[in-house]
Amino acid sequence: MAIGPLGRPSWLGQAIEVDAARLNERMRTLATFGANASGGIDRVAFSDANIEALDWLRELLSAAGFTSASDYAGNLIARKAGTEPGLAPLMFGSHVDSVPGGGNYDGPVGSMGALEAATALADSGHTTRHPLEIAFFTNEEGGKTGSRALAGEVEDFELEIETASGYTIGEGLRRLGGDPDRLAEVVRQDGSVAAFVELHVEQGAVMDTDGIDIGVVEGIVGIMRWNVTVDGVTNHAGTTPMDRRADAMVGAARFVDLVHTTAREMPGRQVATVGRLEAEPGVPNVIPGRVTLTLEIRDLSMEGIERVYFAIERGSAEVGSGSGTTFSFDRFYTSRAAPTSAHIRDIIEASARELGLSARRMPSGAGHDAQSIALFAPVGMIFVPSVAGVSHAPEEHTTERDVTNGANVLLRTVLALDSA
Amino acid sequence: MAIGPLGRPSWLGQAIEVDAARLNERMRTLATFGANASGGIDRVAFSDANIEALDWLRELLSAAGFTSASDYAGNLIARKAGTEPGLAPLMFGSHVDSVPGGGNYDGPVGSMGALEAATALADSGHTTRHPLEIAFFTNEEGGKTGSRALAGEVEDFELEIETASGYTIGEGLRRLGGDPDRLAEVVRQDGSVAAFVELHVEQGAVMDTDGIDIGVVEGIVGIMRWNVTVDGVTNHAGTTPMDRRADAMVGAARFVDLVHTTAREMPGRQVATVGRLEAEPGVPNVIPGRVTLTLEIRDLSMEGIERVYFAIERGSAEVGSGSGTTFSFDRFYTSRAAPTSAHIRDIIEASARELGLSARRMPSGAGHDAQSIALFAPVGMIFVPSVAGVSHAPEEHTTERDVTNGANVLLRTVLALDSA
Repeated sequence: MAIGPLGRPSWLGQAIEVDAARLNERMRTLATFGANASGGIDRVAFSDANIEALDWLRELLSAAGFTSASDYAGNLIARKAGTEPGLAPLMFGSHVDSVPGGGNYDGPVGSMGALEAATALADSGHTTRHPLEIAFFTNEEGGKTGSRALAGEVEDFELEIETASGYTIGEGLRRLGGDPDRLAEVVRQDGSVAAFVELHVEQGAVMDTDGIDIGVVEGIVGIMRWNVTVDGVTNHAGTTPMDRRADAMVGAARFVDLVHTTAREMPGRQVATVGRLEAEPGVPNVIPGRVTLTLEIRDLSMEGIERVYFAIERGSAEVGSGSGTTFSFDRFYTSRAAPTSAHIRDIIEASARELGLSARRMPSGAGHDAQSIALFAPVGMIFVPSVAGVSHAPEEHTTERDVTNGANVLLRTVLALDSA
Repeated sequence: MAIGPLGRPSWLGQAIEVDAARLNERMRTLATFGANASGGIDRVAFSDANIEALDWLRELLSAAGFTSASDYAGNLIARKAGTEPGLAPLMFGSHVDSVPGGGNYDGPVGSMGALEAATALADSGHTTRHPLEIAFFTNEEGGKTGSRALAGEVEDFELEIETASGYTIGEGLRRLGGDPDRLAEVVRQDGSVAAFVELHVEQGAVMDTDGIDIGVVEGIVGIMRWNVTVDGVTNHAGTTPMDRRADAMVGAARFVDLVHTTAREMPGRQVATVGRLEAEPGVPNVIPGRVTLTLEIRDLSMEGIERVYFAIERGSAEVGSGSGTTFSFDRFYTSRAAPTSAHIRDIIEASARELGLSARRMPSGAGHDAQSIALFAPVGMIFVPSVAGVSHAPEEHTTERDVTNGANVLLRTVLALDSA
């Protein structure tokens, strides 16, 4: 560890902090790339606006002494050597692509926070022990292509998927300077990255409602989704007495209540949702014979998801016998949970406390690039509040103070990881 | 009353009965008009098959001594004078049009039963005191156009509605020999018909399940339909904890259960159904902010419908406060209940008993032409069982025995009404 003049780590002695004015000015500049008429942002992956934003970033990174280049997955990776060449790099960053008609905080806060941490470090003259890598990942919103490529998770068929930009993912990678035929070369091995830290907006209302400054993410939840079919008997809504019905809508309704009540009452922070429901034939004067609906369960552990699922499945048998219906479940989507590193969580929490900020440990209910990186490296995530929890909309907002807090916690966390 | 040789009414002395073989043979012949490849029937109102079936009927009615003609509403009306010219006619009949892809019993049983009753009467040489009118009503399945025209209920805009035949109702009326510009001339005044009796299949499973031969219809239920909107708050299904949700799907689900339970547990034979339900935005990973659904309530009295509705509306406030949702109701359809005549009910029941048939009083949950006729005349309805309650499908079926029973009860009922 480098020791400063007062016998304390040099980064503590110098108390490096981000430049709040510069950081928020750059947030505003980034918001001009792809700005649309409704005050939102159309900077979908592979669009001209996406490319222009990355070019702008490249210049700023260069000014901060980083060497930046796109890898074959189109990720913009900025590198700076450390003082101890044998060490694996510390990586941090996020994404600058948006959903169509999105807002200016989901991705930008972490991206500008990483840029600002790098710039503040450069300004301070401090050189870390580890090499630094700042990553701006490709197509987070359209399937986390860039970060998943680093984990070797991108499948061939994905390259043919047409994205909101109008280009396929394969075409898009080439537009970003990547090469879809050489994705195997970007795969990172276990141990090749010392740690990865991502700053991001919460995309929920918990921190805003409860007045929490910093969220210490315990992990990114796993997700499982099922198509559930409820079978009853289609019948005339006028001629079938109430006690002779096998109404799939009634079975489905009790199932929805079961899902909600089970997820709410079991210990833990799992969530379960029925977002879509369709009745057949779906007209006012016919008792539905079949209802199809979606069930989604998220939890920090896959075991937690299964625990909730089995409770719901057991309960559905009871609902079925009470309503003359039968239930069948077809799982169609699984995203594995990605726990964060306990060590990095402690550092994030300590960094927040040192800055006088309140912190709370919490799951990330949404997916993030950190989830892919967790497949080959220890990861940490820092959340800052989303005003009213709004996300993926022009109204998405995080205050300047919170953006600054997040960047400062990110900077401290990277320095603490470097000194450990 | 005409007195027979044994001092009993002549029709009792002669014990007039229908010819089961002829009746069921004619059922099979009618089933050839519009027969489709899947074993069902496409004899929609105004189609060539509809017209051909009516032409065939006209010949048979003529052979039974009836004078038949289409009225301006396209109803085929067959008339025979009675012995007492001052009396208002006794009317009976049903419809021969089908839904697209329908079956061979909904309409045909009552139509062939009426034809057979008329033919059996002619064969017996018995002449009734009242004039007889046999009616085959226009477009029952597409809005009861013919019977409603007799009650003066058809509105101008309906004439422009395109039907399953491809013709508008107005065009269709002309195809049947009617005249849409002269509908006012077919309107019947109160007292102009002494009584109307319709034989029909139950279109439900109650009689089949419980082994009942004859249903004595207490009335045709009224119907009210509402669009119900459940408002909550759209939110991310991953980042919104269970206890911070205002999930419109959960509110809607509890409402569906409330509707079912209320209608089932209140005294009476009302039915209530939610047949359609749609969530917005309707994707697996978003908590629905809005659900729209349909509520339908049917009962023998409009007061009964309102009683159920108010109980449901009260309950929905509780559901709303428990789930953070609000409910609004928009009524979009009302069909008034049509009670049958107590006198005719008694005669139908007595006729069934005389024939050694079991009878049960029951509501008609479906709409029928008799409902329109009830607006200007006392009506009665006779139900025969539908196998497994199947209706509006090729598999719709009523046994030959039940068809024959129904026609015999119809014949006895008409004779009893005539002798009263």
